[in-house]
Amino acid sequence: MSNKKIQPKLILVGAGPGDPDLITVKAIQALGKADIILYDALVNKKILGYAPPGVKKVFVGKRNGQHSLKQHQINNLIVDFAFTYGNVVRLKGGDPFVFGRGYEEIEYAQSFNIETQVIPGISSSVGVPALAGIPVTHRGASESFWVITGTTRTGELSRDIKLASQSTATVVILMGVHKLQQIVEVYKSSGKGDLPIALIQNGTLPDERIAVGTISTIEAIAADRNIGSPAVIVAGAVVKLHPEFVAKDVFEKYLAS
Amino acid sequence: MSNKKIQPKLILVGAGPGDPDLITVKAIQALGKADIILYDALVNKKILGYAPPGVKKVFVGKRNGQHSLKQHQINNLIVDFAFTYGNVVRLKGGDPFVFGRGYEEIEYAQSFNIETQVIPGISSSVGVPALAGIPVTHRGASESFWVITGTTRTGELSRDIKLASQSTATVVILMGVHKLQQIVEVYKSSGKGDLPIALIQNGTLPDERIAVGTISTIEAIAADRNIGSPAVIVAGAVVKLHPEFVAKDVFEKYLAS
Repeated sequence: MSNKKIQPKLILVGAGPGDPDLITVKAIQALGKADIILYDALVNKKILGYAPPGVKKVFVGKRNGQHSLKQHQINNLIVDFAFTYGNVVRLKGGDPFVFGRGYEEIEYAQSFNIETQVIPGISSSVGVPALAGIPVTHRGASESFWVITGTTRTGELSRDIKLASQSTATVVILMGVHKLQQIVEVYKSSGKGDLPIALIQNGTLPDERIAVGTISTIEAIAADRNIGSPAVIVAGAVVKLHPEFVAKDVFEKYLAS
Repeated sequence: MSNKKIQPKLILVGAGPGDPDLITVKAIQALGKADIILYDALVNKKILGYAPPGVKKVFVGKRNGQHSLKQHQINNLIVDFAFTYGNVVRLKGGDPFVFGRGYEEIEYAQSFNIETQVIPGISSSVGVPALAGIPVTHRGASESFWVITGTTRTGELSRDIKLASQSTATVVILMGVHKLQQIVEVYKSSGKGDLPIALIQNGTLPDERIAVGTISTIEAIAADRNIGSPAVIVAGAVVKLHPEFVAKDVFEKYLAS
């Protein structure tokens, strides 16, 4: 620690969807001034390299089934670190306000009169489908897209998914692969068995895997391709634009079985 | 022109919501290899500075009321330029697949066997509210956000807005300020006169202007603040988190009048 006066500050930074080059200039500038970094499981480790040498990097991530810090513990760490070190960079996968619980961290820090700043990141909801060849909007196919979390506070499936299944919006579900069966049931109950749907695991990264099919076929295809978390689900007419959907033989064997 | 063999390619690049530092590293790398650039009205001119010296920059933008190129003319320019120059960087405001008609350009180029690539950008739909102090999702306030265009192919208001007004999603409407009156009517007909709503013009830029109120008050507040295009509309419980919404006296004079 130098003799400079500590100026406590929280900078919430979106790290983007995986590819480290999808980080913004503004995020890199913030990392360059970090006194300490708290980062999540889905942050690409290469991005941590933008921090000055010697800056402490604290992993506070969560991943299905692994032990991790609870939100209130993360909030307390942020406040403690801000008063101890100064500039706390809180690095989150995707965009910090898209189901990142980022605003809870902002509110908590502000309750201690800590200055806060947010730097948006590319949300997986838009960036992952795009890089997999699926635009979330396209004239004639969709006039809107609806982004929904698969993991709600109560653990239940969000009721928004029922309404979304009745709309013509492109529906993007984040953190929902473990609920695929329930999601499929909701769409079937809305009479949407033929709707195109895709699952994209590790989107934007070299080990990206994708399953493309319809509501009726996607569970078998996803199992066949061994798709797991983290993955983005996209349902809607725009999924027809994916090359594998055009090559129908990829999934017609499932339709036939 | 050097003697190198022309390799026609289209790279569709998202320039982000306005602040030039919200550009990604990947976009900067693409600009550095551009042989020609086509850019839209909402692209921050500072971003063009990442192109190599001497690279031609062609404005093909549209803005309300101004003469501009039609989509099929832009498509043809892309193809002509790809075969003439090589690497065509097509720079669009926000993300190229969020109502940017980007996929139409990809499809057209591919029909000439031109190689294509897309580099996502930060969409104004998420980034503009965030930097204005409104998270699109927040536990207890919203489990989803729904992004809708205010400018459809037919010129009519998207029917998705009616369904959206009945949902609990945060609703973000892009390119819809000129239809504010119709949007307000739709929400009122769904019994949502008290729903918080915000309009953010020139989001993320030094001349950003914001109007915060409810469905019943927003037209008067927007007129008072002289809010025009381009602006992002956000409606939903998360708008309550904006500091001006907490300071209710800002709009109570409109409620009283």
